[in-house]
Amino acid sequence: MRSKGGSLDPADYVFSHDLRVRFAETDAMGIVHHAAYLPYLEEARVEYLRAVDHPYQTLQAEGTDIAVLEASVRYLRALRFDDLVRVHLVSCNATRTTFELDYLLTVDGVPCSTAFTAHACVNDRGRPVRLPEWLAGLATRPSTHR
Amino acid sequence: MRSKGGSLDPADYVFSHDLRVRFAETDAMGIVHHAAYLPYLEEARVEYLRAVDHPYQTLQAEGTDIAVLEASVRYLRALRFDDLVRVHLVSCNATRTTFELDYLLTVDGVPCSTAFTAHACVNDRGRPVRLPEWLAGLATRPSTHR
Amino acid sequence: MRSKGGSLDPADYVFSHDLRVRFAETDAMGIVHHAAYLPYLEEARVEYLRAVDHPYQTLQAEGTDIAVLEASVRYLRALRFDDLVRVHLVSCNATRTTFELDYLLTVDGVPCSTAFTAHACVNDRGRPVRLPEWLAGLATRPSTHR
Amino acid sequence: MRSKGGSLDPADYVFSHDLRVRFAETDAMGIVHHAAYLPYLEEARVEYLRAVDHPYQTLQAEGTDIAVLEASVRYLRALRFDDLVRVHLVSCNATRTTFELDYLLTVDGVPCSTAFTAHACVNDRGRPVRLPEWLAGLATRPSTHR
Repeated sequence: MRSKGGSLDPADYVFSHDLRVRFAETDAMGIVHHAAYLPYLEEARVEYLRAVDHPYQTLQAEGTDIAVLEASVRYLRALRFDDLVRVHLVSCNATRTTFELDYLLTVDGVPCSTAFTAHACVNDRGRPVRLPEWLAGLATRPSTHR
Repeated sequence: MRSKGGSLDPADYVFSHDLRVRFAETDAMGIVHHAAYLPYLEEARVEYLRAVDHPYQTLQAEGTDIAVLEASVRYLRALRFDDLVRVHLVSCNATRTTFELDYLLTVDGVPCSTAFTAHACVNDRGRPVRLPEWLAGLATRPSTHR
Repeated sequence: MRSKGGSLDPADYVFSHDLRVRFAETDAMGIVHHAAYLPYLEEARVEYLRAVDHPYQTLQAEGTDIAVLEASVRYLRALRFDDLVRVHLVSCNATRTTFELDYLLTVDGVPCSTAFTAHACVNDRGRPVRLPEWLAGLATRPSTHR
Repeated sequence: MRSKGGSLDPADYVFSHDLRVRFAETDAMGIVHHAAYLPYLEEARVEYLRAVDHPYQTLQAEGTDIAVLEASVRYLRALRFDDLVRVHLVSCNATRTTFELDYLLTVDGVPCSTAFTAHACVNDRGRPVRLPEWLAGLATRPSTHR
């Protein structure tokens, strides 16, 4: 079924953030509900921006928001309550107004999921604006998620 | 343990709204996660305001928001995936700037939960404002939840 | 950026389900949070199975669960609190053990989002099992989401 | 309106856990949605059990689950995106089969919320079972939340 998606090698990512699965994120199949992954990606994005010294709130203070244009997740191995999840990410494919991120989620080094999000910078009326240079400059390689 | 909480008799409530449990709202115990009840109460509040011809968005258009001051839920019987839940509610105890609601959740007529929320009307800077008369007028009895 | 994704024409879908946006599903950008779309798709899937007389709980009673292998959403126009969202869906590309669904979300007939999910039937130990014939038979066309 | 609720003095609590507000947890009022607090309390409970060397998963492995009987939250000051929240907690009022917890949420030392949860230990069929001695022994004082 389709392409195999993003790289399973943590070395292909430039940043990682650890988080622990909450019980509230599980579902009646005993595993993390598939919708709960998107806030994990978002939390990792926020920590990535902080790590590169451009916290999201600074962007917002400058009147720029980061809109989500697309999100895609492949579920390879279930995550479970209390798992310590490492979210690896890398910035890809920046254009004048958009950028993309690839993600790999691992537990104890075992790949559990890959994901991809595409974003646009928008002003406070939701209109696309040019990416700040530092943000465009984060893109290090094309996305491999598709 | 403490008082027995709100009335289990649907006749003590003035409005009801039906909703169906989503799979996303269950947890690894196989039942609806306890945090998922609060959006159920909120959905019922929104439908109640619509039913009394004061939809929430009209309030917002007038610059008034309804803040949550307190929320309390008693879990009597588990809700499960695909259950059709009837949320009964009644407005209680309005003051100049606050009002309260009591709730009863039933499935097939069987009480599963009671709940209570307290609210204030606030302006767009989050400052308390006087309740609109129609809203104060909805309060029909003291809360029995505690 | 990439392909344009799924069809924006409701006539390309075979089923639709209406739901109303909850306040709890909005975020501080004033719109529906992007993670909230996945439970919308799930709710539509559950109603689709009910509509074709194979409710999800019957599947579960037969020891079969439907796992999510992949989910992908394109966000075209923001959804907002209290919007009445129509989720259109169509089953695509069944294999021996997997099937896919394409989705279109509209508000007042205006396309707001397209989405795609891929699924496998699994037994109660999470192992892939052959799709029931009726489920494989629902697939009416290839996915256009990518 | 009613009693003022739980103690605002961190010294009245025995354990604290820090977490950061996710963007996904905010709502269109620009603050953390009131339902998002319950998973914060749950996360703190899980870390508390880990800190006293009885991780939740050990309980589960012994066939015991912790059901939520009641949850109550008072919202004093809004939490916002990216806030670093300290959840203070203390165990209260254990009986043969139930126990309670009081909580205080602070940001930069400023009280933002108090909360209370009541729990029962149940077996894998959901029937109440006697509290393990270590769990009953954690209760250090009566609840002050009401």
